[in-house]
Amino acid sequence: MKISTEDLHDIATGATFLGTGGGGDPYIGRLLAMNAIEEFGMPEIIEPDDLDDEALIFTIAMLGAPTVLGEKAACGDDIDLAIERLTQRLGRKPDALVGIEIGGINSLLPVMAAARLGLPLVNADGMGRAFPEIQMVTFNVYGVSCTPLVVTDDHLTSLVVDTGDAKSAEDLIRIAAMHLGLSVILSSYPMSGAELKRTAVKGTLSLALEIGRSIAAGRDAGRAVDALVEYLRTTPYYNVCKILFDGKVTDINRQTEQGFNIGTCQLTALDDSSITMEISFQNEHLVARVNGKTKAIVPDLICLVDRETAEPVPVDGLKYGQRLKVIATSAAPIMRTPESLAVFGPHAFGIDEPFVPLEQLED
Amino acid sequence: MKISTEDLHDIATGATFLGTGGGGDPYIGRLLAMNAIEEFGMPEIIEPDDLDDEALIFTIAMLGAPTVLGEKAACGDDIDLAIERLTQRLGRKPDALVGIEIGGINSLLPVMAAARLGLPLVNADGMGRAFPEIQMVTFNVYGVSCTPLVVTDDHLTSLVVDTGDAKSAEDLIRIAAMHLGLSVILSSYPMSGAELKRTAVKGTLSLALEIGRSIAAGRDAGRAVDALVEYLRTTPYYNVCKILFDGKVTDINRQTEQGFNIGTCQLTALDDSSITMEISFQNEHLVARVNGKTKAIVPDLICLVDRETAEPVPVDGLKYGQRLKVIATSAAPIMRTPESLAVFGPHAFGIDEPFVPLEQLED
Repeated sequence: MKISTEDLHDIATGATFLGTGGGGDPYIGRLLAMNAIEEFGMPEIIEPDDLDDEALIFTIAMLGAPTVLGEKAACGDDIDLAIERLTQRLGRKPDALVGIEIGGINSLLPVMAAARLGLPLVNADGMGRAFPEIQMVTFNVYGVSCTPLVVTDDHLTSLVVDTGDAKSAEDLIRIAAMHLGLSVILSSYPMSGAELKRTAVKGTLSLALEIGRSIAAGRDAGRAVDALVEYLRTTPYYNVCKILFDGKVTDINRQTEQGFNIGTCQLTALDDSSITMEISFQNEHLVARVNGKTKAIVPDLICLVDRETAEPVPVDGLKYGQRLKVIATSAAPIMRTPESLAVFGPHAFGIDEPFVPLEQLED
Repeated sequence: MKISTEDLHDIATGATFLGTGGGGDPYIGRLLAMNAIEEFGMPEIIEPDDLDDEALIFTIAMLGAPTVLGEKAACGDDIDLAIERLTQRLGRKPDALVGIEIGGINSLLPVMAAARLGLPLVNADGMGRAFPEIQMVTFNVYGVSCTPLVVTDDHLTSLVVDTGDAKSAEDLIRIAAMHLGLSVILSSYPMSGAELKRTAVKGTLSLALEIGRSIAAGRDAGRAVDALVEYLRTTPYYNVCKILFDGKVTDINRQTEQGFNIGTCQLTALDDSSITMEISFQNEHLVARVNGKTKAIVPDLICLVDRETAEPVPVDGLKYGQRLKVIATSAAPIMRTPESLAVFGPHAFGIDEPFVPLEQLED
């Protein structure tokens, strides 16, 4: 797979959609990637199956509250330092990088990192979407150790962390990230090529790109949402796809708590003001209910887009009066297994109802 | 210098005195050291001047709230892991260990560590007393970098930290320590033999031992406090020595805040109930005032001892009605320089008055 600098815009749009409300603003990721590509050239994008089983791959990401990530972006040296420290800890350089999530800023931050470091970037991630916590990835679900991991900041503070499990790592680096200003670089889940092939959600950088392209092409034809939904139905992961709601934003309750954006958004149907949808989020949208009835629930994707342009709207961009369509899609099959649901199903977010696949929920 | 297991008791008593109210309970340190010595043998104690200039020395300590340190002690593997991680980070094994503070539990924890690891322990520390924060050491004052440092806990979590300055390291590892349960192992200030010789407070393990011995001998002779004071006046650091107060405890205000024991203790003179002393502490005693007038102030040492047995009483051991003598001594000269006072003088603790040496304060 080859990408051009023009593609970065479409990837950013697709990544905002896959961010399902969170993941940080990919616009920032695009600027960062553009600058790095200008200075260091476009990195090679490789497929998971092209990796040697013995290859060593590091994830690279920004961690923090989406609101802050956009204001306090990676400086570059912090990325280099994170890779350097993890290399030193393992006594071996990585052969490639991979994203931890394809949703939001972390879709394009790995492009920046791969460009800077002259490393190939793997067309895959650990979510096929975005999630708020670092244990919520297929790498962890299927047995890749989250640590050793490295956290760095723009003052070139570094922490090399080893813990017994990924949730302990999350708890520890979350408070460290809060202390360091809620926007840090994280390199974690060092893994072999064989482990990546077994555990990753594959092909997601391409998917983000094609989602962005389908929105752009549909917009030119004056049918952006329809074009998006049509494309999604052809994908291997997001093929169960429903337009859940067509309404306007009537209330937003949004707080930064424990380093997360937490809250709810209310919409009222355009054609019937007695029908309301409430969407709960923790960075990302977790559950969408119409008049109290669940219509889609995590880890399936719930995405808000402008009803005319299909421009995806993240939680930070929600405003009273916006006219939006709410699109839900299936998550990748590897994300819907009992093992995955134990780590990032509804209960992991304190939601006291079981996961029901989108296709089994009443329209 | 050779020490025996019998000496550990006297070192613990001396270290409680030098803990100036804080530093954690050396009784715990003694048990830990005893166990390690039984299993691994007594470590060699060497003088700073015996170190090669090119030798590599690590500090080793417990970090946390004194109240917790006594309940959640080092397991041993956490110490080994801290040294191992710092060794790996620096690419070189240490030639010796040194304590960060001689007051409290951290007087004897290095004995445990040196025994386990088969390393010599240097007869020195970075304070000649105890202090609550890790930038408050002569190593830092005189230019030794606090980082790379390693924090470990009893679950064998480890953090290898690099920061720009020691106060940033303190802030970061304090919140990490709070998260990990307020009792962690810390190996920091990796330094050369030349640096140690230039910056350490020398001979303090011997001094703790002799302070403990003088109390024990004086107690046998029925004149414990006098014997203690007489001995202190012969030492190179604590030779300005005053009995500031002879009274009973009438009030204690003690809270765990931000990982510290913070508060005040009130005493009333035994011979005149109109005379009261108030002592403020942040883990360690900071300032002693009689009827509002400062009688001793940090970094000079303020120590509370039983008026009959001269048994030092830490902040955690304070009880209403105790009859205590308050002894103040000069700090080591290296601790009273303008450079040192900038790091751990009264202002560093939020006390809005200048340091005045004990010998210049009115009795």
